[in-house]
Formats: sequence, C-alpha cells, structure tokens
Amino acid sequence: MADRLDQERVEFLKKDFAQGFIEYCGFEAVEIEWGKVESSVQVAPHHRQQDGFVHAGVMAAMADHTAGYAGFTTVGDGRRILTVEFKINFLRPAFGEWLRCKARVIRNGSKLVVAEADVYDVREQCPVLCAKALMTQMAVVISKG
Amino acid sequence: MADRLDQERVEFLKKDFAQGFIEYCGFEAVEIEWGKVESSVQVAPHHRQQDGFVHAGVMAAMADHTAGYAGFTTVGDGRRILTVEFKINFLRPAFGEWLRCKARVIRNGSKLVVAEADVYDVREQCPVLCAKALMTQMAVVISKG
Amino acid sequence: MADRLDQERVEFLKKDFAQGFIEYCGFEAVEIEWGKVESSVQVAPHHRQQDGFVHAGVMAAMADHTAGYAGFTTVGDGRRILTVEFKINFLRPAFGEWLRCKARVIRNGSKLVVAEADVYDVREQCPVLCAKALMTQMAVVISKG
Amino acid sequence: MADRLDQERVEFLKKDFAQGFIEYCGFEAVEIEWGKVESSVQVAPHHRQQDGFVHAGVMAAMADHTAGYAGFTTVGDGRRILTVEFKINFLRPAFGEWLRCKARVIRNGSKLVVAEADVYDVREQCPVLCAKALMTQMAVVISKG
Repeated sequence: MADRLDQERVEFLKKDFAQGFIEYCGFEAVEIEWGKVESSVQVAPHHRQQDGFVHAGVMAAMADHTAGYAGFTTVGDGRRILTVEFKINFLRPAFGEWLRCKARVIRNGSKLVVAEADVYDVREQCPVLCAKALMTQMAVVISKG
Repeated sequence: MADRLDQERVEFLKKDFAQGFIEYCGFEAVEIEWGKVESSVQVAPHHRQQDGFVHAGVMAAMADHTAGYAGFTTVGDGRRILTVEFKINFLRPAFGEWLRCKARVIRNGSKLVVAEADVYDVREQCPVLCAKALMTQMAVVISKG
Repeated sequence: MADRLDQERVEFLKKDFAQGFIEYCGFEAVEIEWGKVESSVQVAPHHRQQDGFVHAGVMAAMADHTAGYAGFTTVGDGRRILTVEFKINFLRPAFGEWLRCKARVIRNGSKLVVAEADVYDVREQCPVLCAKALMTQMAVVISKG
Repeated sequence: MADRLDQERVEFLKKDFAQGFIEYCGFEAVEIEWGKVESSVQVAPHHRQQDGFVHAGVMAAMADHTAGYAGFTTVGDGRRILTVEFKINFLRPAFGEWLRCKARVIRNGSKLVVAEADVYDVREQCPVLCAKALMTQMAVVISKG
C-alpha cells in the first residue's frame, strides 16, 4: 500500500506542517515519507509545567499534529485530515533538551485513518520514550473557496 | 466526599495554574472548587491550525491541565498531580472567540484520580461543546528539596 | 435533534440487541429511547476473573454494545453502527449481583457518532459507578444481500 | 530490565490465565515470557455479533486480559494486576477462524504498568491485524486472607 511521495510534496508538507499553534510551539517536521512523519522541538521554558518537566499538553499536541501529517501523506491532494480523537499515555517525565516525535499510520481506510505516535525525550543526545499515543483521523474533502 | 477549599487555597491554585506552557497558551483558571475547575482562553491566531480552526492540541492541553487542577483540589497540600494518560474526542471544529473548559473529578482514589473535561467553543457568547476528554491522574508526594 | 422512536422500532432494537456474544454474556436491553440505551445483566461466576470481581472485559463489552445501540437509535433503518474505537476507565471493582449500563449519544454526526457509557455495579439494589467509557462509532450503509 | 521466567512460573501463569469469564470465552495463553503474552481462541458463533463479525467486546476482552498477564509477568509473586483503563481501535472487521492476541509491556513502573496489545484475525492461517489497544494497569499487593 506504500506509495512514494515526490520531493515537491515533501517540501510542501514540511512547510505546511508549521503554522499557527504548531509554529508558536516551535514544532518542526524533520522527516517525511509515505505514512510516516518525524518532528522535533528544542525544549524551552515555555514548554514546561510547574515542576520543570515538559507539559503533558506539549507532548499531546506534538503527537497529535505529527500523526495528523503522517495521515496527511496517505491521502490525495484534494483531501485533508481532521483528528477524530486520540489517547496518550505518559510513560516518564521529560526533562531533556529536545523532544522528538515519530508517528506512523497503522491503518489507512478510505474514510478513517488510524495512527500511532511515540514521543522521545532527548537527553544528552539519547532518546528515551516518554509518551505513546494512538489516534483516529478522518480524511475530508477540501471544499473549494 | 466533597470538602470545601478555603479562599487562600483557591487563590493559590488560580495563580499556580498559569505557569510555563499554560501561561504561554494564555489559559486561565476562572472557577475553582473542590473537584471542579473551569478555565478560559481568548482565541488568538497562534491557537489555530492550517484551516483556521482551533488546533486539537490546544483543546487537549486545556482539557489535560484543567482536569489536572481539578484533581489537584482533591489531594492534600503535600501532594501534586501527574497525568498518567488521557483520551479526547473532538466533536465539532472550534472557530469562536473563546474556549472554555469545565473539568471535574469522577473518582478520587487514594493513588489514582479519574477526571473528565468538556471543552466549549464560545460563539457570540453561546458555548458549544466541541471536545470531551476522560483522564487518569496519579497523586504523588512532593519531594522536599 | 431528538426524534421519537416508535414502539415497533423499540421492540425490534430490544430483540436485535441480544445476539451472538451478547446473548452468550446474558446482556439485555432494558430501556431504549432516541440516543439512549440502558442494559442489564445478572452477574454469574462466568463473568468474574481470578479474584472474584467482574472481569474488566465484561464491563468493556457491555459498555461498547450498549453504546453501539444508543448510536443505532439515531441512524435510519438502512444503516448500522460499527465501533471505531473506545476507551474505558475502571473506577472501582464490581462485586455485586447485577451490572447496569447507561449509554447515551453525545454527538451524532452524519458519519461519526460519539457516545459515552457508565457501568454500575448494583450492590443490594444500590448502583455504584464502576466504569466509564467514551467511544467513537461509524454509521455505515447496510449492503443489500 | 528483562528477567527470565522459570518454567514453573510460566506453567502457573498459563493455567491461571483461563478462569471465569476468560475460560467462558475460550481464550488460552499460548506463549508467555517476561513482559509478553500471546493468546488464542477458535472463533465460534457465540463470539460474533449481529452481522457475523467477531464482536468488538470479544477483541477488547482478549486484549485487556492478555495485556494484563503480560503485566503480571513483570511483577513479583506477591502482587497482581488490575486494569486501570484501556483504549482499543478496531482496524478491520474480523471474520476468520481464529483470533490471536500479542501483548507486551512498554513501561513497567513501580506502581503503574503500561502495555499494548495487537489482535489478529487469522484467515486461512494468515494473521491480519484487526485491533490495537493501549492500556494502563496497576500492580497491587495481594492481601493475605
């Protein structure tokens, strides 16, 4: 079922990835292939919570968005992805310098896409799995303006 | 099982609520009572995604944090709350001027707290339910520095 | 958005509810109205796990199926409901004589239905909330044979 | 972090696996090692729903229980596992002759265990992934009678 994405599409998706809230959070797409997206962010004080750890909401937003773009790679030009729901487990507190998220599609149905995402806390260049998410997305036809 | 919170504790929690990522997102606690917290944010361009709707990650972070503080009201001074996991369903796109989140504890066990949160999109002062979350939290003893 | 179900439809749904695995588990629909279904089962040894409590799988199956029929009441004759996913939290062990489940639709979209379900452990006629579930369903057109 | 289980413990766990509801459903443990359990069931009419597919509740119960025993392999003799919550996505309808479930622990904390489970529909000996679950468990000390 795996198609290749051409370079133009990859460049479009990388740029499209970081807008609005995602740009505000500093998340960037670093690797994009069919059904898989990897993203990254350098942790700053505004990503933390009251105890100094990365806020669960940061990891949740990163997992959701990265998985959304993994889903986006599997649908045609005229369609986009909406998150239907997701669930995320926090396995360990994150306190390192970077977060990295790897998301992949595990089921690309004609209407619904199911994906999963792992969030890694990068501590002195060593990635430690700190959250895991499982999500449902819907492919919707883009309405022409 | 419902205790009262004194005014001092409520003021502490309101202030404690908005730090780091939460302050960066602009979320504020507007109502706090035992087992219940309500929060609010005025929607800005940096809360939106590529289609102009509020990003799912914003609603997820708001639901998680508001429910975390609802859990926090039910544990003693020497304990804090960590999110174990949460699941959130997005019911409708949010495009209004404000988001409002109402969270409540549905089970306060000695170790685990279960809470739920509803996120409302406030459109011309009319709240519309746009996301619903169910979450598990752990009450941990604060280590003294 | 609430329509009425006629008596014939209610009787059809009650009978349709208990087939295959559900009949094997002994779950019965006791109340059906538009968007809401209540079900019940008398707890037997084959519902329990190794510690004598009702098995989490029993509560999960009951929540899923009852919510599925709550969704089913909101779609037309020519459509049925498939469970896309669900999440369930177990709040307390169940050890009573009966289980009762109350499910309701919280969003009936044109393609996706979101519902929630509460499972009660009935102890000496007193219902205690022991599990809470949040689920996504898809309304699919019944293919004619 | 991986310990070995001795043969005696494996035999105990295999036998302990199939009691009450699980025995009633016909689920059996076929492979057990530290942090991993595989289970199996031959599909019968009483596992199906109204459309002839395996009921979602069967897959949910199988995923929950198999993952529970995967968690059980990682805790000491004096402790047992309770399911705190789980989420399951149904990826494809299951209509084959057998179901097979593979569960593994992804985080064994001192109090909480996080596991995931894949359910395969075995069609003419070919396994097809039909459901994926992510769950939280609690290790509790067995009270002596």
